[in-house]
Amino acid sequence: MKVADYILKITPYEGGKPIEELQRELGLKDVIKLASNENPLGPSKKVIDIICKTAELVNLYPDGNMYYLSQKLANNLGIGEKNLIFGNGSDEIIELLYKAFATNENDEILYCYPTFIEYRIIGMAFNKKIIELPLKNYAYDIDNLISHINNNTRIIFINTPNNPTGTLTTYDDILRIINKATKDTLIVIDEAYYEYAKSSSDYKELLDLYKNENVIILRTFSKVYALAGLRVGYGIASEFIVQTLNRVRPPFNVDIIAQAAAIAALDDKEHLKKTIQTNEEGKKYLYEQFNKLGLFYVSTYANFILFSTPKDAQTIYENLLKEGVIVRSMKPYGYNNFLRVTIGTQKENEIFIEKLKKVLNV
Amino acid sequence: MKVADYILKITPYEGGKPIEELQRELGLKDVIKLASNENPLGPSKKVIDIICKTAELVNLYPDGNMYYLSQKLANNLGIGEKNLIFGNGSDEIIELLYKAFATNENDEILYCYPTFIEYRIIGMAFNKKIIELPLKNYAYDIDNLISHINNNTRIIFINTPNNPTGTLTTYDDILRIINKATKDTLIVIDEAYYEYAKSSSDYKELLDLYKNENVIILRTFSKVYALAGLRVGYGIASEFIVQTLNRVRPPFNVDIIAQAAAIAALDDKEHLKKTIQTNEEGKKYLYEQFNKLGLFYVSTYANFILFSTPKDAQTIYENLLKEGVIVRSMKPYGYNNFLRVTIGTQKENEIFIEKLKKVLNV
Repeated sequence: MKVADYILKITPYEGGKPIEELQRELGLKDVIKLASNENPLGPSKKVIDIICKTAELVNLYPDGNMYYLSQKLANNLGIGEKNLIFGNGSDEIIELLYKAFATNENDEILYCYPTFIEYRIIGMAFNKKIIELPLKNYAYDIDNLISHINNNTRIIFINTPNNPTGTLTTYDDILRIINKATKDTLIVIDEAYYEYAKSSSDYKELLDLYKNENVIILRTFSKVYALAGLRVGYGIASEFIVQTLNRVRPPFNVDIIAQAAAIAALDDKEHLKKTIQTNEEGKKYLYEQFNKLGLFYVSTYANFILFSTPKDAQTIYENLLKEGVIVRSMKPYGYNNFLRVTIGTQKENEIFIEKLKKVLNV
Repeated sequence: MKVADYILKITPYEGGKPIEELQRELGLKDVIKLASNENPLGPSKKVIDIICKTAELVNLYPDGNMYYLSQKLANNLGIGEKNLIFGNGSDEIIELLYKAFATNENDEILYCYPTFIEYRIIGMAFNKKIIELPLKNYAYDIDNLISHINNNTRIIFINTPNNPTGTLTTYDDILRIINKATKDTLIVIDEAYYEYAKSSSDYKELLDLYKNENVIILRTFSKVYALAGLRVGYGIASEFIVQTLNRVRPPFNVDIIAQAAAIAALDDKEHLKKTIQTNEEGKKYLYEQFNKLGLFYVSTYANFILFSTPKDAQTIYENLLKEGVIVRSMKPYGYNNFLRVTIGTQKENEIFIEKLKKVLNV
C-alpha cells in the first residue's frame, strides 16, 4: 500500500503515561499520576451508580441523537438543543471541524503554540497548512495572531485557559479576533478547562459568543466532571454549524454508558464544588512550594501548572517516573526545562513535592 | 461559513429507532426492537460485573495503546498484537481507512450495494468517487466487481455476511479479488457477523487473508459479544497497515469501560455459545413462519433476515411501530417491499410474527 508522505510524517499523540503501564514497566506499586489533568477526586458517586445501572443495556446501540443528554445540557446552559454537538471527547469534534469546514486546498489553520497538540496532529492528517505562532509571556499573542489572518484562514484555535501554560485569553481579545476574521473563518474557542477558569474573578463568561455564526465553543466532561475515561466532549454553536458537523459525525460516537454518566455528572453540583475547592487549595500549596524551591511557574487558570527547573525536563520527568510520580515533560513542546504537573489531592501534591525535591537534590 | 457541496449532500446515517424514542413518541410501554442486529440476550454477566468494577476509574484517561485488550485478543486469534487496530466501533476504522489510504484525488471506492451504508456515507464525507454495483441474487457479484477494478481503485469493501441480505462471499471469491487488485488497492473484508457465519458448515475461515499486505479484516464486539452500546470494533492487518492507521487514530478512541468490557466478553464462552444457539433456533422458527405466510426471504448467515411482503415496506414498518415492534424498512436501500428483522429471543420472534400477521391482515 502506497501511503501519502503527509500521513507518514505524523507522530501519534503521546498522552500521559497510564499508571498500570508504569507499574508494569518498573515493577512499582505506589504510583501517582499528575500528568493528564484528570480529576483527582475520582468520579462522582452518582456517576458510579448510573454506570452500574446502565451496564445491563450495553448490548443496545446508544441513542445517536443523545436526546436526554442534549436536553439536560441545553437546559443547564440556557441554549437550544440544536446548538449542541457531542464528540467521543472534544478531540473528535476537532476532527469533525477539519472534515466539515477545512475542505479547500489552500486552507490555513492558525493558532499560537505551545497549545493542545491535537490541533497540529489532526491538521497534519488532513494535510492542511498549519500556522503556529509563538506564545508571548506564555499566553496567546493576539496582535500577532490577528496580523496573520487572511482569506485562506479557515480555522483559528483559541485554547483558553491554554494547555500547557494555564493562561487566559480575554473576552475582548476574542472579540477582536472575531471582528478581524471573515465569516468564512471558523473560530474555535476551546474551553476544556472552563469550570476551573470560571472560578476565578478574572474570568468573563464566553458563552454568548456562540451566537456568532462562525464561532464554536468546545467544552468537555473529561476534566472537572471526571469522565476522561468515557470520552464526552461537546461543542456549542449555531444550528447551521451543528447540522453541518452532524453530517460528518459517526452515528454512535458517544456510547450508552458515557451518555448516562454525563447526565449524572451534571446532576452532582457538590462534587463539582469540591473539585474546584481541592484545586484552589492545591494550587496555593504548589505555588508556595515552588516559591520556596525558587522554581519559576506560570500562574494558572486551570488544574495544572507549568513550571521550570534548572535541569533538562526529560531527565527530571524520567527520574520522577522512577519515584512513582508521572508528570509531563514539556520538552517535546519546545520548553526544554519545563514540566507540567496536574494539581492533585493534597496528599498527591505533597508526594510530588517530596519526590521533586529528591530528584532535584534539594 | 461556506460549506463544500459534497458535505451538504450527505444524509446522516439513520440507525434503528431506539426503544425509548418509540415509547416517547407513541406513548407505548411494551416495545421490542429487532432493528439493529443487537444480541437479544443482553450482555454477559461477566461484562456487567467488570463495568461496575471499572466505574470508579472513569476519571482516568483510557489506555491509548489498549495493552490488555490487544494482548488478550491477539492470543485468542493467534496473531501478533501489532496486527490489531481498535476503533470506536468498526465504523471508526472505516473512517481511518479513508483518512489514511484514500488520499488521492482520483481514488475510487468499490463495492456492491445494498450493503452497510456507512461505506457510502463516509466516502461522501471524504469526497471520493464511489462505484456501487448491484448485488446478484442478493449476494456480492464478484465477476462484475472484478471487472470494475482499475488502477484508481483504492478501497474495495466486501461485507460478508452482507448486511442487509445475510449472504456470504466465499474464500475463493475473495482470493480472486485479491489476485486481480494491485498492491495499492486496499481490500476490506468486513466480517461484523463473523461468529454467526462461522457457526455454519459453509463458512471457510478468512483470518489468514490478513497476511496479504493490502488486506484488512474488520470484526466487532457489537454483535455476538453484545457490546453495541460500548463501541468496540477491530481490524486485523499487516503491521504496516496498523501502524499507518495508528497515525490517524484519535489517541483515546476506545474508552476505559469499553476496553474492560471487551476483555470480559472474550472470557465468556458460554454466553457466546448460547447466543449462537438462540440465533439458530430463532432462524428456524422465522423461516417456518415466513414459509407459512408465503413470504419470500433470503437465507441468512447472520443474525438478521431480509424478507419481503406484498406491500410497501415503509407502510409495514410504520404499522409495526404502532404495534410496538421496531424492524428496519429497506425502502431507503431501494428494496421497496423488503424489511430486515433481527433474530430475537423466541418470545420476541413470536411477538414479531403475531404483529406482522396483524399488520398484513392475515
